[in-house]
Amino acid sequence: MTQEEDSTVAEDKKLVQAITSMDVDFVQWYTDVVKKAELVEYSSIKGCMIIRPNGYAIWEMIQKELDRRFKETGVENVYMPLFIPESLLQKEKDHVEGFAPEVAWVTQGGLDPLQERLCVRPTSETLFCDLYSRIVQSYRDLPKCYNQWCSVVRWEKTTRPFLRSMEFLWQEGHTVHATAEEAEARTEQMLNVYADFCEEVLAIPMIKGRKTDREKFAGAEATYTIEALMHDGKALQSGTSHNFGDGFAKAFGIQYTDKDNKLVYAHQTSWGMSTRIIGAIIMVHGDDSGLVLPPRIAPVQVMVVPIAQHKEGVLEKANELYNTLKAAGYRAKIDDVDKQPGWKFAEQEIRGIPTRIEIGPKDIEAGQVVVVRRDTREKIVVKIDEVADKLSEILETMQSDMLERARKHRDAHTSVATNYEEFKDAVENKPGFIKAMWCGDEACELKIKEDTTATSRCMPFEQEKISDVCVCCGKPAKKLVYWGKAY
Amino acid sequence: MTQEEDSTVAEDKKLVQAITSMDVDFVQWYTDVVKKAELVEYSSIKGCMIIRPNGYAIWEMIQKELDRRFKETGVENVYMPLFIPESLLQKEKDHVEGFAPEVAWVTQGGLDPLQERLCVRPTSETLFCDLYSRIVQSYRDLPKCYNQWCSVVRWEKTTRPFLRSMEFLWQEGHTVHATAEEAEARTEQMLNVYADFCEEVLAIPMIKGRKTDREKFAGAEATYTIEALMHDGKALQSGTSHNFGDGFAKAFGIQYTDKDNKLVYAHQTSWGMSTRIIGAIIMVHGDDSGLVLPPRIAPVQVMVVPIAQHKEGVLEKANELYNTLKAAGYRAKIDDVDKQPGWKFAEQEIRGIPTRIEIGPKDIEAGQVVVVRRDTREKIVVKIDEVADKLSEILETMQSDMLERARKHRDAHTSVATNYEEFKDAVENKPGFIKAMWCGDEACELKIKEDTTATSRCMPFEQEKISDVCVCCGKPAKKLVYWGKAY
Repeated sequence: MTQEEDSTVAEDKKLVQAITSMDVDFVQWYTDVVKKAELVEYSSIKGCMIIRPNGYAIWEMIQKELDRRFKETGVENVYMPLFIPESLLQKEKDHVEGFAPEVAWVTQGGLDPLQERLCVRPTSETLFCDLYSRIVQSYRDLPKCYNQWCSVVRWEKTTRPFLRSMEFLWQEGHTVHATAEEAEARTEQMLNVYADFCEEVLAIPMIKGRKTDREKFAGAEATYTIEALMHDGKALQSGTSHNFGDGFAKAFGIQYTDKDNKLVYAHQTSWGMSTRIIGAIIMVHGDDSGLVLPPRIAPVQVMVVPIAQHKEGVLEKANELYNTLKAAGYRAKIDDVDKQPGWKFAEQEIRGIPTRIEIGPKDIEAGQVVVVRRDTREKIVVKIDEVADKLSEILETMQSDMLERARKHRDAHTSVATNYEEFKDAVENKPGFIKAMWCGDEACELKIKEDTTATSRCMPFEQEKISDVCVCCGKPAKKLVYWGKAY
Repeated sequence: MTQEEDSTVAEDKKLVQAITSMDVDFVQWYTDVVKKAELVEYSSIKGCMIIRPNGYAIWEMIQKELDRRFKETGVENVYMPLFIPESLLQKEKDHVEGFAPEVAWVTQGGLDPLQERLCVRPTSETLFCDLYSRIVQSYRDLPKCYNQWCSVVRWEKTTRPFLRSMEFLWQEGHTVHATAEEAEARTEQMLNVYADFCEEVLAIPMIKGRKTDREKFAGAEATYTIEALMHDGKALQSGTSHNFGDGFAKAFGIQYTDKDNKLVYAHQTSWGMSTRIIGAIIMVHGDDSGLVLPPRIAPVQVMVVPIAQHKEGVLEKANELYNTLKAAGYRAKIDDVDKQPGWKFAEQEIRGIPTRIEIGPKDIEAGQVVVVRRDTREKIVVKIDEVADKLSEILETMQSDMLERARKHRDAHTSVATNYEEFKDAVENKPGFIKAMWCGDEACELKIKEDTTATSRCMPFEQEKISDVCVCCGKPAKKLVYWGKAY
């Protein structure tokens, strides 16, 4: 350790100590990370968060990746109004019952009270249906696969940054099809887009499955979901895709003339992913030093940190390296502010930047640098001339290691229960998913929730038969269900 | 003309006739274009528009170009809440007076009435100030240059797609600086970013200048603006950049300790451009066949149209060309639906796609295609093997021709008035900008507006002295002003 590094250990420690250990208090750890990494700031409106540059840059990366994948499947972007007239919201019975209790109402515009209240969109099914009822006339107009990136509002009492807030950012896709089969295919396709994105880019393995009727979207025929396991063993619903059948089409009169000149109802889907997924990135990969961002989603992939930067030639060489990395296409930054390396290391670690490159006088003399991985803290000595080549390997290895580690953690925190005692013991003592059989009766779902606070996460597409009977009532089982406590 | 083309003339005409001629009724022409090009659709909420895929794709191109330019100047993106508590909106006196009459108020959240009303953001100065008052403490924290892409709401009685609507999309940049000089430099820098973007990408020449006190932003020390001239001779304010001095900082307590350890107020700016600019693209470049999009902003730059596509080899060759163009980096599409070429030509023209490539059996035999420019309808015969090379030249020529044409139109519609009779005659008989001297007195500005409905557009940065006296009152003149009727 150089003198410079040595002198900064105290300062370094202080920064790191500001984050509560995740084993001591996971909830506080999460809040600390979100705040210290400067992802969000609280606002004057209770329950609404400000997404700061470090947080928003992650969302921009997510948008870019998802948007590209959407467009590859033929999706087009649109923008729908922020407001929904009360009468329009009420057109689909289940839908309004699901959302009305948690919407914000505009009752005055300018100086005048409104004749009809407008709700601030909690989701935009009703607006898309209204549009489709006007622009879909013939089978030639189908399918329409629209998406929008926007914010939505849900009046939540208890809020937490990214996980649950009164306003959040998301995308909502809404499609309309000629047949039930096409709608079903699109519902599955978009769930797969989400799952692949999470695995390939966010290094988060997902369980894909179907929600029970109790947990499905208000107005949907079927809701498919991807469920992830957080570090503390709680589940997080990370994206959903809904098949509406022709329910909304009937409520909104979305009809078209088919090839035989018959007037028939269209079939619809909707699907969404929100800033909530940033919470998943934090809680799956983070550690006691802060965020750990998977290289493919990190807004900054590598931070060049000059050591003893006042010494002749160091800053020059560090900048040269930084420029080489940028030219090679890395999302690189250089931290050349007048602070001690230890402070810079802690800063880079809190922010979860996947790698840092330490470059000091001795390194330069030896024609090498030290690449440090954020996830393992492994130090890799690389020749200066080879950094631009080697770094992509290091980042790709880190990416796949992170996915592997998350998968192992999830598998190690997935237990099996074949009777109610085992089930209750698992909820109590083994944080994580619990796989158990279910009779299909909502009463059992409710009882489990009341007894244990665990909820049905999904009926996985990959069904296994681990017992013949329902884990709760003992009657013949219909489905394997993933259960868990959830965010 | 081939037989195929001949048979479609009638159909072609019908589509084109659906657009009112701009010389007959410019307002109706605008509405027709917006609707027929499928840029927007009206919604169930009076005054709110739905931006359809063709319209939103233009906005995405604008976002991409502007966002890149912002980031090159060190701007970072954030997201602020949609709602502003009434008490926060009221902190800066001029600001609240300017905006309160046109905001939407949320008075109920979920099932409960709110204790304090929330307004739906008409602009977010107050939220950014509130944030800056909390995160700016030392000169080391400065500058902060934040921007957000979002929608805002202003309760307008009379609305028109893109030009004026109750809700519109925009970006709003908000910066905070140590000194007045830095704030002034940023205000000018961002106005230049807007002006350069409009000229280089949208092919719209801009007059840069300063707004009079009467026309400036509520709460600003100075507002700079870019003003464009539409085809009908009306002006459109296309982007603004405001210097707030330390007025908002004093109202919101944004103070920092400077290098001498003294507590001082910060200086701020804000700047915005909105979906309104799409209205400018339409009204500067459009013609009686529809939209004409400048190649650099066009979501689709070239449409490949197979002629007699049922004949052997045509579709195959057309697709080959389409793939070549895509591989070469063009934003290309192929229109191979089972419709007549005339219908496809009209469709491509209405949507303003800069070029189409006609490829039929005879062309293939001759080893050539016909490239047709949307703006001039010029037909350019190009060898098939050379299309990928030649097309970029054609598009670049079209881009610069469009700018030149718009500049000539503007200059031909800019008149000079040295006395009030000339001024009134110009407003009456010469649609366009009027350059005239002004004494600096608001009374003259008001009188001109009342007498003629023309308003002061800006005091251009490039001042000339065309007379010694105010065009209205005859007293000594202080400034040259661009006047005009405006959208």
